[in-house]
Amino acid sequence: MSERAAIPREGRRRVLVEDVTPRIDGGRYPAKRILGERLDVGCNLVADGHDALAGIFSYRRVGDSAWHSTPLEGGKNDRWTASFVPDTVGSWEFAVEGWVDRYETWRRGVARKIEAGQDVSVEVLTGAQLLVEAATRASGAEADVLAQAATHARDAKKAAADRFAASSSDSIAALMARHPDRADATRSPTFRLTIDPPRARFSAWYEMFPRSAGAPGKHGTLRDVIAKLPYVQSMGFDVLYLPPIHPIGRSFRKGKNNTLTPGPDDVGSPWAIGAAEGGHKAVHPSLGTVADLRMLVTEARTRGIEVALDIAFQASPDHPYVKEHPEWFLKRPDGTIQYAENPPKKYQDVYPFDFECQAWESLWIELASVVTFWCEQGVRIFRVDNPHTKSLRFWEWCIAEVKREHPETIFLAEAFTRPTLMYALAKAGFTQSYTYFTWRHTKGEFTQYLTELSRPPVSDFYRPNFWPNTPDILPEHLQFGGRSMFVQRLILAATLSSNYGIYGPPFELMEHVARPGAEEYIDNEKFQLRTWNIEREDSLSNIITLVNRIRREHAAFHDNRITFHRTDNEQLLCYSKRSADGSSVVLVAVNLDTAHRHAGWIDLDLGALGIDGGESFQVHDLLADARYQWQGTRAYVEIDPGIMPAQIFQVRRRIRTEHEFEYFL
Amino acid sequence: MSERAAIPREGRRRVLVEDVTPRIDGGRYPAKRILGERLDVGCNLVADGHDALAGIFSYRRVGDSAWHSTPLEGGKNDRWTASFVPDTVGSWEFAVEGWVDRYETWRRGVARKIEAGQDVSVEVLTGAQLLVEAATRASGAEADVLAQAATHARDAKKAAADRFAASSSDSIAALMARHPDRADATRSPTFRLTIDPPRARFSAWYEMFPRSAGAPGKHGTLRDVIAKLPYVQSMGFDVLYLPPIHPIGRSFRKGKNNTLTPGPDDVGSPWAIGAAEGGHKAVHPSLGTVADLRMLVTEARTRGIEVALDIAFQASPDHPYVKEHPEWFLKRPDGTIQYAENPPKKYQDVYPFDFECQAWESLWIELASVVTFWCEQGVRIFRVDNPHTKSLRFWEWCIAEVKREHPETIFLAEAFTRPTLMYALAKAGFTQSYTYFTWRHTKGEFTQYLTELSRPPVSDFYRPNFWPNTPDILPEHLQFGGRSMFVQRLILAATLSSNYGIYGPPFELMEHVARPGAEEYIDNEKFQLRTWNIEREDSLSNIITLVNRIRREHAAFHDNRITFHRTDNEQLLCYSKRSADGSSVVLVAVNLDTAHRHAGWIDLDLGALGIDGGESFQVHDLLADARYQWQGTRAYVEIDPGIMPAQIFQVRRRIRTEHEFEYFL
Repeated sequence: MSERAAIPREGRRRVLVEDVTPRIDGGRYPAKRILGERLDVGCNLVADGHDALAGIFSYRRVGDSAWHSTPLEGGKNDRWTASFVPDTVGSWEFAVEGWVDRYETWRRGVARKIEAGQDVSVEVLTGAQLLVEAATRASGAEADVLAQAATHARDAKKAAADRFAASSSDSIAALMARHPDRADATRSPTFRLTIDPPRARFSAWYEMFPRSAGAPGKHGTLRDVIAKLPYVQSMGFDVLYLPPIHPIGRSFRKGKNNTLTPGPDDVGSPWAIGAAEGGHKAVHPSLGTVADLRMLVTEARTRGIEVALDIAFQASPDHPYVKEHPEWFLKRPDGTIQYAENPPKKYQDVYPFDFECQAWESLWIELASVVTFWCEQGVRIFRVDNPHTKSLRFWEWCIAEVKREHPETIFLAEAFTRPTLMYALAKAGFTQSYTYFTWRHTKGEFTQYLTELSRPPVSDFYRPNFWPNTPDILPEHLQFGGRSMFVQRLILAATLSSNYGIYGPPFELMEHVARPGAEEYIDNEKFQLRTWNIEREDSLSNIITLVNRIRREHAAFHDNRITFHRTDNEQLLCYSKRSADGSSVVLVAVNLDTAHRHAGWIDLDLGALGIDGGESFQVHDLLADARYQWQGTRAYVEIDPGIMPAQIFQVRRRIRTEHEFEYFL
Repeated sequence: MSERAAIPREGRRRVLVEDVTPRIDGGRYPAKRILGERLDVGCNLVADGHDALAGIFSYRRVGDSAWHSTPLEGGKNDRWTASFVPDTVGSWEFAVEGWVDRYETWRRGVARKIEAGQDVSVEVLTGAQLLVEAATRASGAEADVLAQAATHARDAKKAAADRFAASSSDSIAALMARHPDRADATRSPTFRLTIDPPRARFSAWYEMFPRSAGAPGKHGTLRDVIAKLPYVQSMGFDVLYLPPIHPIGRSFRKGKNNTLTPGPDDVGSPWAIGAAEGGHKAVHPSLGTVADLRMLVTEARTRGIEVALDIAFQASPDHPYVKEHPEWFLKRPDGTIQYAENPPKKYQDVYPFDFECQAWESLWIELASVVTFWCEQGVRIFRVDNPHTKSLRFWEWCIAEVKREHPETIFLAEAFTRPTLMYALAKAGFTQSYTYFTWRHTKGEFTQYLTELSRPPVSDFYRPNFWPNTPDILPEHLQFGGRSMFVQRLILAATLSSNYGIYGPPFELMEHVARPGAEEYIDNEKFQLRTWNIEREDSLSNIITLVNRIRREHAAFHDNRITFHRTDNEQLLCYSKRSADGSSVVLVAVNLDTAHRHAGWIDLDLGALGIDGGESFQVHDLLADARYQWQGTRAYVEIDPGIMPAQIFQVRRRIRTEHEFEYFL
């Protein structure tokens, strides 16, 4: 052991940069933010001693050569912050940098000495030297001003205090801050950001099967879907999601109610993709053409609706890939292709792709080209089927590859699996994610789950999308809970999460009969055509319309920050949301028991509502259009689920104008 | 944008390795553990789908060529764990690795198919292929066994179920686990560990000025300190810390009570290091010689005591460095050397080293050689004075450099500064750290502070050392609280933290008069000789002896895991500790109010005590030697601070032997 431990080259960089936020897994993944939303960055700058520090925050779009930068502002406990508003969607990157500010250290110290009546004639010479050095880093007029200040500071004929004043004025200090000595600055690694369009954060989805959009008994078409757009728009949805629209395989086709004995007219599951007519880049002939899809996308967009397609990366045995690219599938020892299975269950109508095959790279490239193909038809939102059964590294690459040319694209991960895997998919790049909402019922469950989802680190990469139902899931409470339960789950989904969706028309028509033994609809559209009477008098479309309008009009619902307020009744769930600028505040009280009326006291967190302790304020129930006057932290609510299972209050502060006229904001 | 996003080379590595623990700042710093203590490592292994995974934990001493490894064990929610017991002090490193276990996936799936009565004749051939591949990775008899199993599996004359049985037995599975296919394994980065000797985690420090160890009125010597060793040992301390023992400068020497007008006999502050007689590698002539120091170290060690020296990296104006290495000091524009200052305060008796000087590397090397010099004299513990005013990167290098040859060395950071800087020093390598304990008084403060210190991430790198007093700090509560307060602070320090220390004899003699206007002793030993009558009848030495014995005998006090138990009285603080093996459990109740008797109910967390809900158990107050029988979660205590301000209970479970004889553990 004769050698010495290596002396680090950066030995003179006294500042450490720690705990940079936002930061996902130490910087391995980008944090997610929204176009036009202020992004706050923080870090600790830690150095020995008591010297003044300074730092900058640098950022740029990935691919740009120049960095923008802005000074870091120091706060409590060595925490420094900065912010910026990203002005384009796509990949951004940032870093922070800190250094010892010798000029400010000097300026502060000498000022204190002068205050204490000490002689500073030597000290001003130190300052003069710092000014001279800064002048060499500056140019033009700025360099001249600094050099001049240095000359003043060295003028032995003047009093030391005057010489200090000339070299430490606010204007000189500002100049010095513009030309810092960064030779021994410490720079953080570069962290990435994904900037998404506003709809990534706030959206209302409506899922429907296009083949059920036609006249009774007929196979619906994409053009029939165009005819349904006014209905979807009138309810206030802004994403229309269609299950796969591709040709459907015939081999091992499933019959009605998931039977293995289809009749000749059975239409099969849209997720068994691929037939003689084409694969993932084709439209089912009965639905129409790629041109029809383009028309649907365009028509929808004029109504403020984006069409979302389904990406299901699997093939029916009849998919052209099976013949053209057998190398992408796992071959069994008997030469047959391995169908999907979850032993002992067999899914012989579906072949999974083999992400571990020798030809994995060509497989990846083809699959990404499927998404870009639909992007080229104008589609910008994709709901991805079972992404958790495909390689995580594939998704990370595929989503980056698609966003390279279409950075505004939104991907919703339909994964119902283990928490680590749900989160891993979000980190890999999915914009939004399905959640466990469907199986959460109690006050404790909602409080715990939403608290986890709404705070960093999870909120930095995972955007929940709450669904009360899907074609695959008719949860038990909807089977037996009746109308109140449908309304309650709608309100919970729509107000707990800024992204939510329903599968209709079964939702608004309160379809609730399950296939025996399954948590799934009987006579499911997945396996057959259905006809829906959306004009039915008891349809929930009116309440859906109202809830979506409340969401749109109150910015507090546009993101996921949430505060829970204690109640003295286990069946009463109470939470509030507040927009970033504080201008919109809402409070929601839900009776979780749809069978009984409940009343109780809420213990309000007034700070979270932006209300001062003594102030009286108005809460305006936007569902019932009723208004109440509250004051203090205790509030009484009584909710009869037979009338309406929740109250959605706008919290209105009393504003007194200069003319003593009062109104509520 | 015609290029494609780069396809990652590791595209077939389906497993992600996440959230490896212990991990400090993403792996930037080593986590700290103790020789002989089981070290638990955890990580998430996350992969798409439902395949079986496997993994290993690999570790080695830094510098060794071979890795040891042990399988990771799978637990809940994709969490995998392993553990090992480090058998030498020093730097270790580890990594974890995970992969898809194709054999176990196959074995599990085929077993389920057989259970469901399905034909598996094709499936067994897949298994045979996996066995053949594993045989090529194995050798000798193991390879033969695997090849044979493959042949059986392919034997078309046998029934498929038999062929499966032969290729999936537990013994074959164990062999397969020994020869996994790691071609597409994902390996974590390598993380570092610092393994320290047991005294790093559990120690009782006694600080004394050697120059006060002599006969009244005489300058004490290191040999006088040897004579005090029985006293220190009898009280149960195992670290004896001496303030700097080096020659003391004469220029700007401080007089008694920190005055600027010393008399000719004033001895000066030991922290003004360096004079004509030598610098940091010399012993003050009045104290003795380097040989005396070696003798003290040896004598102390025979009594189970380690001598700790003070490392104060600063120089008096008379230090030989000032003439020999002027390049290590900051020169002012008038050619003088910059003394220490915190404007407007001046410390003209001390020159700081300039860690930003051009010759920084030679400065670093010399300073590290100071520590190794004392290591060579047998010293293994250093208390570092004001490390927070020296470069953090210097400490990181210096401690590594010293530990390269003396890995058992312990460094205590005497930094009272901002939390981020305290933690940064610990991360840089300090073994133990002074804390804010001295200024914490209330139940809320202790609960919050100890909770922060006792849990990861802080507990992975920061080891608190609690001091009720130091030569620099005579806190207000000791000035006015009387004997009960001294005892209370002793018990708090000694039982809240596994490392603690006192500055004696002033502590046991309850010195409590402050210099007016300062939180510091009057007639402070820092500036003058003092004589102490340690035989005084009212000395706290007996209670100190008892507390140290309780600490030693009860393993629960040997680390910092702690649980706080609610009490219904704000003045009653209650906490428990439990040794890693559960064999030692203690519960401490402290009356924080030294002026009044307090009683109240404790709401016991029985799980933390290792007690079953219905069980009755004994608590044995080790201070008063009183025993109480408790049952359930409610316990009553009453504490009269005039008698004893705390109760330290050993929690004793009732053990019933096979002969129905009961005793308490």
